[in-house]
Amino acid sequence: MNKESKTLPKPYLLVRSLFPENQEMPVHFLRLPKIPKEYFFRRNHFPYPELSQDTYSLPINGEVLTPITFTYEELLKMPSKSLVLPLECSGNKRSYFRPRVHGEQWESGAISQGEWRGVSLCNLLSLTGIKPDAVEILFEGYDKGKKPGYDKVLSFQRSLPVPKALHPDTIIAYEYNGEPIPFKHGYPLRIIVPNWYAMASVKWLRSITVIPYKFQGPFQTDDYVYYPNKEEAANVRPVTTINVNSVIQQPLDYQILSAGVHNIDGIAWTGHGKILKVEISLDEGRSWSGVNLYNQSQHPYSWTFWSYTWKVDKKGEYTIMSRAYDSDGRAQPNVAEWNKKGYGYNAVYSVNVKIE
Amino acid sequence: MNKESKTLPKPYLLVRSLFPENQEMPVHFLRLPKIPKEYFFRRNHFPYPELSQDTYSLPINGEVLTPITFTYEELLKMPSKSLVLPLECSGNKRSYFRPRVHGEQWESGAISQGEWRGVSLCNLLSLTGIKPDAVEILFEGYDKGKKPGYDKVLSFQRSLPVPKALHPDTIIAYEYNGEPIPFKHGYPLRIIVPNWYAMASVKWLRSITVIPYKFQGPFQTDDYVYYPNKEEAANVRPVTTINVNSVIQQPLDYQILSAGVHNIDGIAWTGHGKILKVEISLDEGRSWSGVNLYNQSQHPYSWTFWSYTWKVDKKGEYTIMSRAYDSDGRAQPNVAEWNKKGYGYNAVYSVNVKIE
Repeated sequence: MNKESKTLPKPYLLVRSLFPENQEMPVHFLRLPKIPKEYFFRRNHFPYPELSQDTYSLPINGEVLTPITFTYEELLKMPSKSLVLPLECSGNKRSYFRPRVHGEQWESGAISQGEWRGVSLCNLLSLTGIKPDAVEILFEGYDKGKKPGYDKVLSFQRSLPVPKALHPDTIIAYEYNGEPIPFKHGYPLRIIVPNWYAMASVKWLRSITVIPYKFQGPFQTDDYVYYPNKEEAANVRPVTTINVNSVIQQPLDYQILSAGVHNIDGIAWTGHGKILKVEISLDEGRSWSGVNLYNQSQHPYSWTFWSYTWKVDKKGEYTIMSRAYDSDGRAQPNVAEWNKKGYGYNAVYSVNVKIE
Repeated sequence: MNKESKTLPKPYLLVRSLFPENQEMPVHFLRLPKIPKEYFFRRNHFPYPELSQDTYSLPINGEVLTPITFTYEELLKMPSKSLVLPLECSGNKRSYFRPRVHGEQWESGAISQGEWRGVSLCNLLSLTGIKPDAVEILFEGYDKGKKPGYDKVLSFQRSLPVPKALHPDTIIAYEYNGEPIPFKHGYPLRIIVPNWYAMASVKWLRSITVIPYKFQGPFQTDDYVYYPNKEEAANVRPVTTINVNSVIQQPLDYQILSAGVHNIDGIAWTGHGKILKVEISLDEGRSWSGVNLYNQSQHPYSWTFWSYTWKVDKKGEYTIMSRAYDSDGRAQPNVAEWNKKGYGYNAVYSVNVKIE
């Protein structure tokens, strides 16, 4: 018998596009606080960059008192901190919007969590100093290429307001799960911005620039902006903090089950404080019950596992819904706020099952 | 730089369930006449079977003149033939039915094609002889387990009418793409039934029995039956021959593209003769154009690659549709014939893209 017969079935990444590479984590099949690197979702705007040895240093310049270029080795020797947190693509769940919107058709797996270690950016900026006219801090990655609707080659650039950049948990990371960051996730250096959608956590960091104005690049003012109207640009606002959200991992949508006892398992997360409560409904939203939450305390940014034991005898169809609440008083809405580019989807999660 | 940076992005199987293992081929990202074994879709009703050495022989009994048990080695020495053909799960594209139906939520990748080599079943049956009262031939696999709604442990059993079983291209296969059949795809022996949906191509063959009646097992008369009505069992008919069908591989649904020239690529296939024509529409079905077909002649059962060069200058949304026609006069319908268990979906394939 060949060896495949001995190995347990395993899930893989779910491909959305190959060039650039965009692949989901198989979120329904992993129930781990630290996602192994091979399962971390991959999200790229451009081909993977070509990096050479000069990659290993990181210049901080612009509106600083003393521009400094930090080598990779210098950063490794500085005081560090590690954070267990989810990175979530702001387009996660985009395929669920109705009317549908264009862009990568992510289902629920454009999110992954693990342990990032690095140096607080505020420590680095305390060494360079910041001039009083600083407004934002600009991060440029080594990744670049063409974007539909633009003629020129663009590099991936994103800015943060100074206060967010100076938060002590905004780190220049060099490790993921205790190893150097995997190349596809930003090796050698990646900024990690807790609580914000992951477009802010620029990979393959090339430079950091303190700027005296609000950055207007295409990934700041064209993409990663909520456009609530299809035709006009009224009431736009930038994509920043992760919305309160949840998924039901098991059972799967439109699964057929036997009568009996089944676990209903899921994850909940938020960029606003922590998850306080998750409720599920087994009757299409007419009544709701609390579920057991796990992993609440150790890591303040971590997602929360939840579980419910469902005893079901009566054959038929059931709609199971989950709704998470966070400590900032937010709850998942019944209908997500539609926006033209499909960011921040967080409606109540729903699966339909049939008991046979 | 670690070695990941040197490797091209690649797709993986798309998990639908792990126990039993059901995973799709990434159909949009492979354009190959013979799908490598690691990309072949996996479809199981039960856990993988435990096989021991006695696996290597195949008894043929029942309404035969001389029951014979063929050893694996004997089969390898007999005259063989190889066939390049797609195996398609009858539930392929089930997730596209509206109203939705329960069961594995396959998108378009529950299909894979490759080269199967084996011995014509009719050669084996010419050695055993068949009694005149034979009606069907029953195939049992080693896989077994529980099924929702049934109390007892069931094994996977399917029958064929005698004429289909005796077709010279119905083979007892022992090789896939020139190697022993991968365990997950039926090692050591699998029947391959050209033109029928793949539930007929029983894996891990344990026995073949000639029977004087129509088999009534649950995978013959409960599953793999078209039920056109949700509530009553009127007008039911068994799932047999593959419907004429196509997919658009590229572009992807809801993809954003630049103005310019794009290839529209796809595959078409049928269980009724061969693909004669594929048309595409770029205006939501108002007008249709022929496309170039490839790989038509060598293998009579093979799927057909097709391609179209699309020059598009005007920004906006476009709906691209594909419709295949076969030599038996069938064409993909605008709306697939709804059935309760979700088999045989073959509506015109449609993707929406946005030019920016």
